[in-house]
Amino acid sequence: MVSRVGLKDVAEAAGVSITTVSHVLNETPHVRVSPQTRQRVQDVAARLNYRPNRMARGLRTRSSGMIGLLTEEIATTPHAGRIILGAQEAASRHNLTLAIINSALMADADERREDVNALLDRHVDGIIYATVYHDVVSPPAELRSVPAVLIGARDRAGQVPSVVPDEQQGAHDAVLALAAAGHRRIAFAGNSDDVPATRGRRVGYLTGMAAAGLTVDPDLIADAESEPLGGHESASRLLAAAEPPTAIFCYNDRMAMGVYRALNDRGLRIPEDLSVIGFDDQQPIASGLFPGLTTVALPHYEMGAWAVESLAAQLAGTPTDGGSQPLRLPCPLVTRSSVAPVRTGPPSP
Amino acid sequence: MVSRVGLKDVAEAAGVSITTVSHVLNETPHVRVSPQTRQRVQDVAARLNYRPNRMARGLRTRSSGMIGLLTEEIATTPHAGRIILGAQEAASRHNLTLAIINSALMADADERREDVNALLDRHVDGIIYATVYHDVVSPPAELRSVPAVLIGARDRAGQVPSVVPDEQQGAHDAVLALAAAGHRRIAFAGNSDDVPATRGRRVGYLTGMAAAGLTVDPDLIADAESEPLGGHESASRLLAAAEPPTAIFCYNDRMAMGVYRALNDRGLRIPEDLSVIGFDDQQPIASGLFPGLTTVALPHYEMGAWAVESLAAQLAGTPTDGGSQPLRLPCPLVTRSSVAPVRTGPPSP
Repeated sequence: MVSRVGLKDVAEAAGVSITTVSHVLNETPHVRVSPQTRQRVQDVAARLNYRPNRMARGLRTRSSGMIGLLTEEIATTPHAGRIILGAQEAASRHNLTLAIINSALMADADERREDVNALLDRHVDGIIYATVYHDVVSPPAELRSVPAVLIGARDRAGQVPSVVPDEQQGAHDAVLALAAAGHRRIAFAGNSDDVPATRGRRVGYLTGMAAAGLTVDPDLIADAESEPLGGHESASRLLAAAEPPTAIFCYNDRMAMGVYRALNDRGLRIPEDLSVIGFDDQQPIASGLFPGLTTVALPHYEMGAWAVESLAAQLAGTPTDGGSQPLRLPCPLVTRSSVAPVRTGPPSP
Repeated sequence: MVSRVGLKDVAEAAGVSITTVSHVLNETPHVRVSPQTRQRVQDVAARLNYRPNRMARGLRTRSSGMIGLLTEEIATTPHAGRIILGAQEAASRHNLTLAIINSALMADADERREDVNALLDRHVDGIIYATVYHDVVSPPAELRSVPAVLIGARDRAGQVPSVVPDEQQGAHDAVLALAAAGHRRIAFAGNSDDVPATRGRRVGYLTGMAAAGLTVDPDLIADAESEPLGGHESASRLLAAAEPPTAIFCYNDRMAMGVYRALNDRGLRIPEDLSVIGFDDQQPIASGLFPGLTTVALPHYEMGAWAVESLAAQLAGTPTDGGSQPLRLPCPLVTRSSVAPVRTGPPSP
């Protein structure tokens, strides 16, 4: 194993005292070291690839340079990787390191407290607390012993700043895109599971229809499990309506995968016979389907990055707006090939 | 912000000196403290939720209790989440914290050295270096200044222990499963991109065919881009063969997605008319396709866990076998509904 270069090694190689090396490399104020010596120490340190001991510096500055990310079920949410990536790249820009703890999805309050304490034991400078399926959470009080932010849910106590995807705006814009292509009978294949995204996307569908001046036909809303099989089931019900839709907006891309199959089974072509829009921009589904699926992307990378930027600002002493209302980041429409202008003639045989 | 409880707070509440509290809570050997005082200090510490300062302890013990995970492109590889999860859960078992750095896929040697140094600056006790598309890597020399392991590639210098998926065994077993269902004309929809998995899975296909006593028909090997569109293209070529296959083993689930579509386009049913096996067990494809795709799972969780266990063993002073040969973890077959016994009669109309 290669031994690590210390202050002592730099001092010996530069022919000066350890104290001098320390003064130079730590840029201690009010200490006189000649420019030549200073230069020599810096050159030797660079040549030996000397790296400062951040742990010791952490004790002096009461800062570990480390941010803790506590996430629920890293592996079971397809987009957690992008939250981590966004947070990690923002952390690098601030010369911070990201430590990760995975919390069980169904963890109870005591387990969550333990997870937070495990990060506090490492003297993290701040904590990002990311959840998946909640509108509102009550994080353990210990979380507030350092600067903290929430991703995916707001703080019940209104103390911790938070960031969430603007599900409603994303769904609203998807419906408007279908309306702009001339569709009037726009169906919604919704999620039967009551999670925040279900509610946000349903409201967005309704406000989008209203904004486009379209009436909502209850026969054109079919909730099912938010998986391919559920999408297949929703589409089958929607296509059996007295007056079937010309476009289907799907709760997510997994349901859209099942909608594609249901249309394909009936010899209906996308987008010639029916337009489809998904939600999530989940790969490889969204670009892997034939034709490529127009969908709505979630701002996971951006939420991860925002969380770190917010912590960095708190660490720098910038006052925050507090956590009464979450910041809603936009969900942009990603246009591929599954939307076409509405057919004016009768359906092809 | 809630202020953190320190030794001083415990000392005041317990009515003893800070030194006594320190002796009790750090279990300093050869120091006499009465059992009653010891108990009182421990009770007060528990009541105040006192947490030891691991940073200070790290300086004493020269151990940070932190493991660094350096991964390539967390967000662009679908399975990185499971490597992280496996590593994180193993780290928890050893009371270690996982710090993550994302390295660019095309990072040059200097950038990789910087990434490793960033972790060394945090005084990590060990480093996991995970790569995606390489057989062999030459990690920066700095990596060896602490215990290290590689995931996904072996060390060119043969110094750092490594773990990789046994791609060959996975493909071999998939072909044997098809042969066991009576298939003799088993095609391979391969990857045209020359990455380690391409070679391992191709060799596994060939050894599987040989082990089943089947001859390989060059017309039944069709390489294409490892995406749904490539799978569609491969299947189209395979089905145009003079004597078409009764089963297709696909390089990955994304190609299988395209194979499904190609068969569906031609009115061929899976598994009645043709059996299909994929590779990767990539969700939501594998369980989202109709019918569910029988496939081969990658041991990402297990590799992440193994990496931490290996580091923990090295940290405990257990000698390692070194890095001349990587440990190959098995890729298990995951049975769903896309394989059926070969048809003996003529294909259905």
